[in-house]
Amino acid sequence: MASIGDVAKLAGVSRSTVSLVCNNKGYVSDETRKKIEKAMKELNYIPSELGRNLKMQKSGIVGIIVPDIAHPFFSTFIKYAEKELYSRGYKALICGTAGREDVEEAYLQMLDRRTMDGVIMGAHSLKKERYLKIDRPIVTIDCYLADYIPTVHVDKRQVAEKAASLFLEKNRKKVVQLVSSHTIKNYENEKEQLFHELLEKQGCEVVDISIGYNTFTAEGYKDAAERIFEECSDMDGIFGVDMAAIACLREAKLRKLKVPEELSIVSIDGTYITKLGPEILTSIVQPIEKMAKKLVSMIILQIEGKQVEEIKAIFDVEIQDGETC
Amino acid sequence: MASIGDVAKLAGVSRSTVSLVCNNKGYVSDETRKKIEKAMKELNYIPSELGRNLKMQKSGIVGIIVPDIAHPFFSTFIKYAEKELYSRGYKALICGTAGREDVEEAYLQMLDRRTMDGVIMGAHSLKKERYLKIDRPIVTIDCYLADYIPTVHVDKRQVAEKAASLFLEKNRKKVVQLVSSHTIKNYENEKEQLFHELLEKQGCEVVDISIGYNTFTAEGYKDAAERIFEECSDMDGIFGVDMAAIACLREAKLRKLKVPEELSIVSIDGTYITKLGPEILTSIVQPIEKMAKKLVSMIILQIEGKQVEEIKAIFDVEIQDGETC
Repeated sequence: MASIGDVAKLAGVSRSTVSLVCNNKGYVSDETRKKIEKAMKELNYIPSELGRNLKMQKSGIVGIIVPDIAHPFFSTFIKYAEKELYSRGYKALICGTAGREDVEEAYLQMLDRRTMDGVIMGAHSLKKERYLKIDRPIVTIDCYLADYIPTVHVDKRQVAEKAASLFLEKNRKKVVQLVSSHTIKNYENEKEQLFHELLEKQGCEVVDISIGYNTFTAEGYKDAAERIFEECSDMDGIFGVDMAAIACLREAKLRKLKVPEELSIVSIDGTYITKLGPEILTSIVQPIEKMAKKLVSMIILQIEGKQVEEIKAIFDVEIQDGETC
Repeated sequence: MASIGDVAKLAGVSRSTVSLVCNNKGYVSDETRKKIEKAMKELNYIPSELGRNLKMQKSGIVGIIVPDIAHPFFSTFIKYAEKELYSRGYKALICGTAGREDVEEAYLQMLDRRTMDGVIMGAHSLKKERYLKIDRPIVTIDCYLADYIPTVHVDKRQVAEKAASLFLEKNRKKVVQLVSSHTIKNYENEKEQLFHELLEKQGCEVVDISIGYNTFTAEGYKDAAERIFEECSDMDGIFGVDMAAIACLREAKLRKLKVPEELSIVSIDGTYITKLGPEILTSIVQPIEKMAKKLVSMIILQIEGKQVEEIKAIFDVEIQDGETC
């Protein structure tokens, strides 16, 4: 590929003059500019973005850090975030952290070193203090770090109310709620607590079963499903994330339990895997595309040095009428 | 954040001396180096990677271009490729092209402009000539562009043989093969042809039905499944990609057809969505992790200016014993 030196030589000017033309900066006479542009065309010269980025102290890249890139919630989130970032002039660099201890720290350091202009955090395996040390653009998915770090999440009250209403309509008496352990306060605790209250008030018992942290594989969910049916064989309802709900659907079938007649299963997220079949899952659907767009607009405001007015953006959920409750 | 100027000022040296220390280049006396390192520590200075990248004409970033980031094959591929790239000192920039015409071209230009050191191509919606113009590191997934552009794919003969054997064992007489239309020669055609031959030789009819190009959503596969059952209501076998196979499983259920008694369904890819349930799909499994690792090693060889000996890396597939054939 032609270099800036080749262009300068052919145009009979200095390299710095070519650089001025490439970056649209400084004074260059029309005649010289034309000579340089002609030489660039002739040599098929493409200016390096690296030089331009250095001048602007900007990379045009936003990092997206999630626990598992292949997980249907996060892969869908990344898909929409990348599309929105692109339409706003940014590119998406991604990182999956599950099972890899030092990776998250390494990416946060890249943010400091300007390889990325900002980070959208969907994983948080470090101590909270670490995030509070960052003075570069950062936003989070579904996680409270500090009052000045923007986040998006769905209305947890609504999630609990809608899910509870589905089980109550079917007159369920013992519902297992799948929970995960959290290191940093996210809004799950509030939802889990409310789900208990709403059902228990109506005489329905709620049993929490933890499916472990960083369980994101088909095998992990399969093991969890087996454990759930062993620990609580007399349940008549299950409420959990999509992949866990589908694994439970299978476990119910293996144990010859009829869904939804004997067991209601409601999933949360409502990603594409709940819509494929063979059974469509009854789900509480998160508006992943809208949430991705909002986070992108929040991070870009920060990158551009503007104030993010709305620190918490809260979204409505919808019930997906399925065949499992 | 502290700048290089701040460090220079505090250490009482020039900016270029600080730069030499940051980049581990040139001669700097031990005394001066210590002063600079002390100043960097005191100011919590983190050198910008942008400057270093410019000097090296390297970004440390590899692009991964796929049709749909959320698709289970591609999201799993990206997950493993990112992990492997990271372990080799590179970061993954991603792009989904489905439904977005100009995006692929824009990313290829970024490759030219050195924003990326190389590209792993899993999508190819441009004309073949465009790819042949690229003289920067590039590898492809499952697609032949030219003899000098490395690619990985599974052994298509094996795929056809293993799939055919599954249907023949069950004595199937009319199997629908789901095909997609391709603009560029990939290795699918060979597989589709061979699948025909192997079954027809044994007296089993094979009907090709196209599910369209760039169909990657749950809705798209649902529509395709309906069409398949309308066009070929007397089939007793279906062979197609995971998401299409699951959509067909649902359509069979709605039409009260028993799987596998009356209809055998075999899927290709064998991604995690075939393992969740409620039915485990009988699948031909691609070794996605191995393929991702191989592509990463191929692109890094190119980036480092080394010869890629193995232009075509061909992988074995395995049968996943499922419950649908």
